Amino acid sequence: MKYKLIELINLLGSETKGDLSQETISGLAPFFQAQEDSVTFASDEKFLKKINETKAKVIIVPTGINLPENEKIYIRVKENPRTLMPKILNFFKRPLKKMEKMIEENTSIGNDCEIAPNVYLGHDTLIGNRVKIMPGAVICQGVTIGDDCIINPNVTIREFCTLGKGCIIQPGAVIGSDGFGYTKVDGINTKIEQIGSVILEDFVEIGANTTVDRGTIGDTIIKKYTKIDNLVQIAHNDIIGENCLIISQVGIAGSTEIGDNTTLAGQVGVAGHLKIGSNVIIAAKSGVMANIEDNKILSGFPLVDHREDMKIKIGMKKLPELLKKIKEIEKKLNNVIK
Amino acid sequence: MKYKLIELINLLGSETKGDLSQETISGLAPFFQAQEDSVTFASDEKFLKKINETKAKVIIVPTGINLPENEKIYIRVKENPRTLMPKILNFFKRPLKKMEKMIEENTSIGNDCEIAPNVYLGHDTLIGNRVKIMPGAVICQGVTIGDDCIINPNVTIREFCTLGKGCIIQPGAVIGSDGFGYTKVDGINTKIEQIGSVILEDFVEIGANTTVDRGTIGDTIIKKYTKIDNLVQIAHNDIIGENCLIISQVGIAGSTEIGDNTTLAGQVGVAGHLKIGSNVIIAAKSGVMANIEDNKILSGFPLVDHREDMKIKIGMKKLPELLKKIKEIEKKLNNVIK
Amino acid sequence: MKYKLIELINLLGSETKGDLSQETISGLAPFFQAQEDSVTFASDEKFLKKINETKAKVIIVPTGINLPENEKIYIRVKENPRTLMPKILNFFKRPLKKMEKMIEENTSIGNDCEIAPNVYLGHDTLIGNRVKIMPGAVICQGVTIGDDCIINPNVTIREFCTLGKGCIIQPGAVIGSDGFGYTKVDGINTKIEQIGSVILEDFVEIGANTTVDRGTIGDTIIKKYTKIDNLVQIAHNDIIGENCLIISQVGIAGSTEIGDNTTLAGQVGVAGHLKIGSNVIIAAKSGVMANIEDNKILSGFPLVDHREDMKIKIGMKKLPELLKKIKEIEKKLNNVIK
Repeated sequence: MKYKLIELINLLGSETKGDLSQETISGLAPFFQAQEDSVTFASDEKFLKKINETKAKVIIVPTGINLPENEKIYIRVKENPRTLMPKILNFFKRPLKKMEKMIEENTSIGNDCEIAPNVYLGHDTLIGNRVKIMPGAVICQGVTIGDDCIINPNVTIREFCTLGKGCIIQPGAVIGSDGFGYTKVDGINTKIEQIGSVILEDFVEIGANTTVDRGTIGDTIIKKYTKIDNLVQIAHNDIIGENCLIISQVGIAGSTEIGDNTTLAGQVGVAGHLKIGSNVIIAAKSGVMANIEDNKILSGFPLVDHREDMKIKIGMKKLPELLKKIKEIEKKLNNVIK
Repeated sequence: MKYKLIELINLLGSETKGDLSQETISGLAPFFQAQEDSVTFASDEKFLKKINETKAKVIIVPTGINLPENEKIYIRVKENPRTLMPKILNFFKRPLKKMEKMIEENTSIGNDCEIAPNVYLGHDTLIGNRVKIMPGAVICQGVTIGDDCIINPNVTIREFCTLGKGCIIQPGAVIGSDGFGYTKVDGINTKIEQIGSVILEDFVEIGANTTVDRGTIGDTIIKKYTKIDNLVQIAHNDIIGENCLIISQVGIAGSTEIGDNTTLAGQVGVAGHLKIGSNVIIAAKSGVMANIEDNKILSGFPLVDHREDMKIKIGMKKLPELLKKIKEIEKKLNNVIK
Repeated sequence: MKYKLIELINLLGSETKGDLSQETISGLAPFFQAQEDSVTFASDEKFLKKINETKAKVIIVPTGINLPENEKIYIRVKENPRTLMPKILNFFKRPLKKMEKMIEENTSIGNDCEIAPNVYLGHDTLIGNRVKIMPGAVICQGVTIGDDCIINPNVTIREFCTLGKGCIIQPGAVIGSDGFGYTKVDGINTKIEQIGSVILEDFVEIGANTTVDRGTIGDTIIKKYTKIDNLVQIAHNDIIGENCLIISQVGIAGSTEIGDNTTLAGQVGVAGHLKIGSNVIIAAKSGVMANIEDNKILSGFPLVDHREDMKIKIGMKKLPELLKKIKEIEKKLNNVIK
């Protein structure tokens, strides 16, 4: 596919030298992978220094920068080229095939949505404006998706879950799987129906293959601006506050509440039915087994003040030596006592 | 979509006041998210106390309970409303679109199955009665699925795996991926074909995005009533006993056998080729590196008796202080010796 | 479906007794699950000893082995039957349905590919020869896939990622999800567009439900022969060397570089912006917080030499006893000093 370069230049409101009306480009490509007919961009020092190492014929660059004279075409932009990405990507985006047979009855789809082929929309789903749903996504009965959400490929959103505005769900994520709730009936693990739901507030992002279980009766809630990385487990009835960062492979057991602006680093585990405060930071691989007040920086398992944990880890390293030392001390002491 | 309320009441065998023959409802909704035309239910104290906080016009409640007089319609049921859930959900369930072109040759599908649009059934698949397969699920060649199984969206069941009766596979789970088996050929990692299979016995549940690898030669087996949470890794040739609970993010390396009624809490890691007994409980984040006898409650890494681990964790907290103390002791002792 | 046995025998170049021209078989089955009309194989002692325990009428066995005289049909092969697996599986493989409507414009598909129903191929995708793409896989715009790759069901490969030759992607894996990159704007987590890509070199294998994030600007790279297990997290801009083994549930934070022939065991966590050497082995559940030189065998958290970590773990077990001992020592010492 060939795109007219001049149209991209006009879109970006840039000025360039010479007559480019006949130039075509094939698409956007990363700096080092670009082919001759691609456009790429050099947003910072690292790339500007290596400007001759891209094969791309056309390079988007910041204004006011000296660049080598060569046969490259520079498009100079006032903003950081990276902030223009959505605009540029949109320019190259191809219209997806229409294929509406996967859409059940009584769905409502807003304006300017892009529903890819091979998407399933269940009964009574309510899709806002400018929502993008990629192939393989399954949106089950009764789900509501707010304006400007992006649902990536192979995402599952199960029955009756609700997404606010501007949420992004990375590929393979599952929203609304059954919580892990069983009771013993005659000693046998017996399923407790999980009839709550999941609510993601505005601008929540959910990482690839992350799982967010629906509530047992009430809802699992993730509040606005909170970003969750890949392969994280959010269990039934968890309530995650606003503007939190939950890094990859964290697991939070059921019915735990977390305040606002809290960060859980990678592979942290949090037990169920706890209250974690706001502005808390928990270091990677820690195990959280008790409530935590606001503004704490903790780490380790056992979980302690972060600086204390550093000392504990130093202590652990010295343990073998310590064991020897204590034997010596005992010996000496026994000699003294004798 | 409008449903006749009187039909739901008749289905539940309940009595209500007044003439409800013209009342319609739009569906079932969680208590706090319900709209006026929804039906919801209040199954326990928590909800009954807040009966005015739901917008739902119709509320299913237990019999023999005093409720405020208002314009709500109460459907009084003898059983706990929650146990009626499958019946109620079924009442509202819409027929899914038929789309059979994804079904390969020589498949056998039992009675009263619900195969959603966008499901793939490979050659020679054998599907029991009343099986529900949701959109995006991929059932590969030669798979057998027992009666009453529920296969959620975007699940993959690879070639020749077998599911017993009443299994539930949460969204995104993978059954029968290749085990992680390589050998060095001239120093290069070279794949060992993984030609075993996976057998899930009756009433096994597999969590969202959990992975169960096929056996290298023999099979990976998960025995009846065992429930596995989200994001768990079950490696090739593991044999998990009956009625176990494996909590989220547990990883079990290959060829390990686990007895019956054993619980592994979140983020536990188990090494390969081990034998773990029955009625064992392993606390969260523990590392299992050796065989375990029946009836043990263990935790930690190193793994020890759970109460001992509590003491170790207390000891760890005291390590920095301990280091100081020992320095003091040495000093004093040296003074004494001098 | 019935296959002619004689065709399989001819394919394997084996000799058998008697006239088998009318014999039919229904497919390949695991040893213990086989039905009468299946073919199975007995590749080693374990199975040969139990040759009467399979129901299969036809058994593939190594040459030069004494077997019981019975009504079974033995196909004797010179190679280990297991190495014949690809050939045998291919014999039984049924042609998948054709359904090309999920393929967008300007895609290039090589020779002898098998693109299953329900696969989505985005614009400008470039698929090599003999590539197999299973149902539910989503290959987004601009992706390049090398010769002989196998893309399993429900895999997502996002925009502009590149796979070398002979890569295998297990079900549910995600290649090219957005990296976890946010900046605070007025205190609010604000997404940084992730515009790099992912490059998998030749013969890389990616496990089920593993996630490999795209680079923020540059690329995330996994070099040739490296094998990654299930549920692993590879973050943005990581560079994983050649011929590494990354075991299940490992998480590697962003911008970390790993050398060649390095093994990370299960549930290891690696912090971001580190350099890990070649021929390094990190034991299970370890936490890596600093650079590592070549040829190290390390374990624990804190991470130390593996043998040292064994001593630390012994020390931890002795900690409760140690605490008591030190109290006793203090007491005795105080008595002495008095």
